[in-house]
Amino acid sequence: MSKLPHISTSIFTVMSKMAAEHNAINLSQGFPNFPVDERLTTIVAKLAKENVHQYTPMSGYPPLLSKIVTLVKKSYGRTLQADTELLITAGATQAIFTTILALVKTNDEVLILDPSYDCYEAPVLLCNANPVRVALNDDYTPNWEIIEKACTPKTKMIIINNPHNPTGKILKQSDFESLEILLEKYPDILVLSDEVYEYITFEEKHISAHTRKKLLNRCVMISSFGKSFHVTGWKVGYLVAPEYLMKEIKKVHQFLVFSVNSICQVAISDYLDLVSVDEIGKFYQEKRDYFRQLLKDSRFKLMPCEGTYFQVASYAAISNENDVDFCKHLIVEHGVAAIPISTFYDDGKDLKLIRFCFAKDNATLEEAAKRLCAI
Amino acid sequence: MSKLPHISTSIFTVMSKMAAEHNAINLSQGFPNFPVDERLTTIVAKLAKENVHQYTPMSGYPPLLSKIVTLVKKSYGRTLQADTELLITAGATQAIFTTILALVKTNDEVLILDPSYDCYEAPVLLCNANPVRVALNDDYTPNWEIIEKACTPKTKMIIINNPHNPTGKILKQSDFESLEILLEKYPDILVLSDEVYEYITFEEKHISAHTRKKLLNRCVMISSFGKSFHVTGWKVGYLVAPEYLMKEIKKVHQFLVFSVNSICQVAISDYLDLVSVDEIGKFYQEKRDYFRQLLKDSRFKLMPCEGTYFQVASYAAISNENDVDFCKHLIVEHGVAAIPISTFYDDGKDLKLIRFCFAKDNATLEEAAKRLCAI
Ligand SMILES: CSCCC(=O)C(=O)O
Ligand SMILES: CSCCC(=O)C(=O)O
Repeated sequence: MSKLPHISTSIFTVMSKMAAEHNAINLSQGFPNFPVDERLTTIVAKLAKENVHQYTPMSGYPPLLSKIVTLVKKSYGRTLQADTELLITAGATQAIFTTILALVKTNDEVLILDPSYDCYEAPVLLCNANPVRVALNDDYTPNWEIIEKACTPKTKMIIINNPHNPTGKILKQSDFESLEILLEKYPDILVLSDEVYEYITFEEKHISAHTRKKLLNRCVMISSFGKSFHVTGWKVGYLVAPEYLMKEIKKVHQFLVFSVNSICQVAISDYLDLVSVDEIGKFYQEKRDYFRQLLKDSRFKLMPCEGTYFQVASYAAISNENDVDFCKHLIVEHGVAAIPISTFYDDGKDLKLIRFCFAKDNATLEEAAKRLCAI
Repeated sequence: MSKLPHISTSIFTVMSKMAAEHNAINLSQGFPNFPVDERLTTIVAKLAKENVHQYTPMSGYPPLLSKIVTLVKKSYGRTLQADTELLITAGATQAIFTTILALVKTNDEVLILDPSYDCYEAPVLLCNANPVRVALNDDYTPNWEIIEKACTPKTKMIIINNPHNPTGKILKQSDFESLEILLEKYPDILVLSDEVYEYITFEEKHISAHTRKKLLNRCVMISSFGKSFHVTGWKVGYLVAPEYLMKEIKKVHQFLVFSVNSICQVAISDYLDLVSVDEIGKFYQEKRDYFRQLLKDSRFKLMPCEGTYFQVASYAAISNENDVDFCKHLIVEHGVAAIPISTFYDDGKDLKLIRFCFAKDNATLEEAAKRLCAI
């Protein structure tokens, strides 16, 4: 009877709720716990009294669109057309859902790389299309041969997530080259590139899909100001697509949400004059390094982290439990909440791995690390 | 190729844009032009500096859910369960889209009363379901006999909009009785009740679908704080549904948008302690009366207006043009923007009627009326 019989409450909701009930330090759901930049909150306080409370145009607040054009130009050297290639969305989740609804049809196949964030499958199913899971390599790099083997005449879209949640991997130049070679053989396949952590990368610079000459005409790139500016509750994201795809996406967007929260759009627009996105990667790199340092004498084994604000850790040396049970015990007995990595796998593969969010103030990271080191 | 081949830019976007280009008074798209209540903007300014910038829970900010329970109890005497029957949405549009996506399946039929607001059809089409248009009577009351004739074993949902955009009609006790008799014969039909103007009614009190004993277990009621509190840009609405439907709706909501703008949810929650919704109907009733008074010597014939902030007017005494052309001329030659009523009809039926939005400060209404009286 249900259109989504296998979907239940997201693991982020489950773990955040359990963390609250047990008064645990919440390193599960990905959101910062430190204060938002005062420059940004000051803008909001000032705007509250201004004329920013009615519908913005359907595609977004026009000055914000222009600022994003400038930002993208500065970050990647690409010049976007604000009126035809850009759309402001109610967060990246809405952008992803809208893109899939607009472009994927009955019986199409959509490739989703395993493990992956949990929001890609539901919209594919609601299109009466088929999600096709393709495993990443053990080190979480894409295996382009296996991906190519999964391509069929029905394949409509490949979803990539770069930087990758939960593993913190970023795609390399060589990955894009492989993807481009593959796509030459399949001219109808589109790429949905979830890049909500585009500005949270460390040693290596992020490569954005829409800046690749061979991809820009067939990819939809999605980003999130919530992640970049530590305001996950605002639900303001954006989407870049070539005009012929954007036309279809806007048709759905117009009737799915029509427009996006006005005051927060204006605030971000004004803030983009003051802030440099270079600050963001540096800020989180320090957090990552600090958190890893704090855990270095623990019994957790830390995986590499190239981007995002997530640290994956193995607890194999500590326990034999499956990772969902381990996370529950971690909350109840040790007062720290994390996310079990098995929940990112379609088949629930359990590698004794959990994910910590390190977007927290140092005192929180220190207290969490103290508890984790005591295990 | 397009999944929505017949859908183009909404008339509200078209007319608002044209109004701006010609510097016309914009009585087309429905949004207020007067300042938001200072009590509400003061709350936002204060909240900007507080910890209200991260994800709220998926169903909404818990205190806001409680306040809505209180509001609904006070307005209609019904006690909702906050955790199972209420959902905060990114505006009513998102609520409507999400409800249809969650509940309507391939080949289902959905009854839409003609004329109607423009956002119901796209989600039905995206479900591979069939919108079935049923004409309202000439006085815009529902014709329950014709509606019943349109019901088939495939009918999944009837969409009602009460108070009705664009006509300003409200459903009467007798309408609900007829609907309930009809539904007894069709136990599987659900009702989606778009009540975004629930607090904008005048001589008669609004009847909310979910307060009817015979409907509450099969209806989804949708409302909008944007309309009630003059903040259309905020995109905060809510949805009431029985638990078995809400479960399905939340599954989609979780992956469609996940959560709703946090600071505006908190602001509305705090504001609900200060404001009485009784103010809203009174406020707009005065606007309606003032606007009608200003136009009484014009050549426009004013239709009755029982609710909403829209006034429908006939220009038959002025021009023979179709209503879209008349609206364009009205902008270009007379500096006033309105919405052609034909665009609310599936077949574009042209009755020489246009819709004015009177949610404007008195000076704007006066200047618009001056221009309209000069025609
Ligand atoms: C939308 S809740 C999940 C937040 C997030 O991005 C994560 O924790 O992975
Ligand atoms: C979402 S834009 C349309 C606003 C509105 O409700 C109307 O003008 O009818």
